[in-house]
Amino acid sequence: MNPSSLALPHVAKLHAYTPGLQPTGPGWVKLNTNECPYPPSPRVAEALRREIREDGASLRLYPNPKSSSLRATVAKLHGLREESVVIGNGSDDILNLLVRAFCTSDAAVGFTFPSYSLYPVLVEIQDGRSEVIEFDRSMKLPLDRIAASTARAFFLTSPNAPTGVGFANVEIEQILARFNGLLVVDEAYAPFASENAVPLLARHPRLVVVRTLSKANALAGIRVGYALAHAEVIDVLDRVRDSYNVSRLSQVAAIAALGDADYHAAVVTKIKATREAHANEFATRRGWFTYPSQANFIFTEPKNNRGETGPAVAKSAYDFLFSRKVLVRYFASHALTASFLRISVGTDDEMLVLQNSLDAWLKAPPNA
Amino acid sequence: MNPSSLALPHVAKLHAYTPGLQPTGPGWVKLNTNECPYPPSPRVAEALRREIREDGASLRLYPNPKSSSLRATVAKLHGLREESVVIGNGSDDILNLLVRAFCTSDAAVGFTFPSYSLYPVLVEIQDGRSEVIEFDRSMKLPLDRIAASTARAFFLTSPNAPTGVGFANVEIEQILARFNGLLVVDEAYAPFASENAVPLLARHPRLVVVRTLSKANALAGIRVGYALAHAEVIDVLDRVRDSYNVSRLSQVAAIAALGDADYHAAVVTKIKATREAHANEFATRRGWFTYPSQANFIFTEPKNNRGETGPAVAKSAYDFLFSRKVLVRYFASHALTASFLRISVGTDDEMLVLQNSLDAWLKAPPNA
Repeated sequence: MNPSSLALPHVAKLHAYTPGLQPTGPGWVKLNTNECPYPPSPRVAEALRREIREDGASLRLYPNPKSSSLRATVAKLHGLREESVVIGNGSDDILNLLVRAFCTSDAAVGFTFPSYSLYPVLVEIQDGRSEVIEFDRSMKLPLDRIAASTARAFFLTSPNAPTGVGFANVEIEQILARFNGLLVVDEAYAPFASENAVPLLARHPRLVVVRTLSKANALAGIRVGYALAHAEVIDVLDRVRDSYNVSRLSQVAAIAALGDADYHAAVVTKIKATREAHANEFATRRGWFTYPSQANFIFTEPKNNRGETGPAVAKSAYDFLFSRKVLVRYFASHALTASFLRISVGTDDEMLVLQNSLDAWLKAPPNA
Repeated sequence: MNPSSLALPHVAKLHAYTPGLQPTGPGWVKLNTNECPYPPSPRVAEALRREIREDGASLRLYPNPKSSSLRATVAKLHGLREESVVIGNGSDDILNLLVRAFCTSDAAVGFTFPSYSLYPVLVEIQDGRSEVIEFDRSMKLPLDRIAASTARAFFLTSPNAPTGVGFANVEIEQILARFNGLLVVDEAYAPFASENAVPLLARHPRLVVVRTLSKANALAGIRVGYALAHAEVIDVLDRVRDSYNVSRLSQVAAIAALGDADYHAAVVTKIKATREAHANEFATRRGWFTYPSQANFIFTEPKNNRGETGPAVAKSAYDFLFSRKVLVRYFASHALTASFLRISVGTDDEMLVLQNSLDAWLKAPPNA
């Protein structure tokens, strides 16, 4: 007998989430997964060396199951109480816990399209129901439709991925005033935005803010994210959380990083400056339609040397860049995204390689 | 409105898993969570320092999503193909994935009592059904009852926790011949046993073997475990797995540890020698009923200075040890465990402190 036939029917049909390529060879300009182009705070390496010491002896012991010191650090950072914080093995862990605690086939999870493509995967794993609200090309927040949603929880990526468009707190509060479920604002990119929803937590018990250390803190490799919410929601998430979900080294690294606010502020300032310069390059010099980005990436619609746009053009640019070992992200599956490229903001040097490669693409006949 | 009222009904009723205490102050003799009393292979600290380098720059990048190099290392170690291996954020992650892929309210997960107390918690989180098969005091494997189980998957802890009793491959094959579901042999403690089920994988597609690096490899702090199984089962687990479930540092540490077989063989030999000496101390010198252990802990039934046993006696011994900062584990909730203590095998010095503290308990009136 076929052993996979024992798996639950919905699991056999799952569409796995497709992470961005992680090339291992040298020479790649990697602008595809919104990692930080700069190293983390030097305090991270120092703290890790201190934890490891000569012989790594502390690694024989289980981590603190609640990541207590890290919770305290996060709480202090945001001016909240520790009861309002839960730590995840990356923010993906947090999103998964939210789905497990709030979603079934009767209780939908809502989200916009486009947004983080992991949400529908998590709902499918749960055998739950998704309620998808599509943006139009303006990418203006469909407030009325979200407010009217009957979802148990709604995941709002703000700033949005892959467009980079940020949503204002005044809009988020309008949703909270009218939507009856849990509003999860996924703020993976909020450190690069002009506003964030954390100040709303004090007066909105149905608001959850999700953060990650993968982007602005340059720690995608250690897998730490967190949720900020009402203590009752945190208690629920703790009940479905694996008791040792975050390793000792990840806890130590995260505490060190969050303690160095000045360093990360400088990194964010630099990334925003590079973003503005290159968003302008795309929009003005090249004349490519480009969404205003509040994130660490740019979503732009390539125009070929005949002035054409569209999926074939975007694919041609993607393939040309790939052939030059410049890796960006291309989302072929939907009309709202298929004529665009999502380009993570790299160092100035990396962005120069990107722009030069695009110049070469524009000169290379044929280019779709 | 109360935000936790939005949580699913079964989540609101969850009994959280109770991890063993992780005291942070100095001076504790920690024999409560079956950690390794010796540090991990020196190669672990070296490999971590190499990955971190001066500035921790690699940590800005996501880990390999499949832990590919670690899979290859594990596969080679067990003489299997990479398609037969999946890596988890601790073996708890693997157990959770198994529950998510195979368990619902219709498809039960079976397990024995006593065994790893996380299983029923994972089933409750899934809102699934548990099928519990109780041992009797002999702790002989209830073969016929397991074989007759209608569970979709059966979790067999071998060697068992908290008793330490190991089960022979010949018994496991008898179950596989008669039980129709997935047989998950949780081998967290198998490196300390005389036999393990890995050789059975080649001819039993419904067998899953789960391992951890937390015990014999002295790496509880880094959270790495794995499953060995038919490629189809692995594919199912990969579909429900978080795509970046294991951090860069954990992958690096695990590869280094598994590459140093000689070191860990020496650690295991030492722990087994200490275990045998102290099992004998309990059973022979003290005359305490003690199960033969194939694990890195001893399950023994304390007898007070009036020759009595029972829950009150075990609790008295636990409390006395605790007051001396000697931490062991006491499972009060069931008649099969409540008159016993589970004592992790520590260093010889730690075990001497334990035995001296028990001598003091026996001299201290009143002791239940």
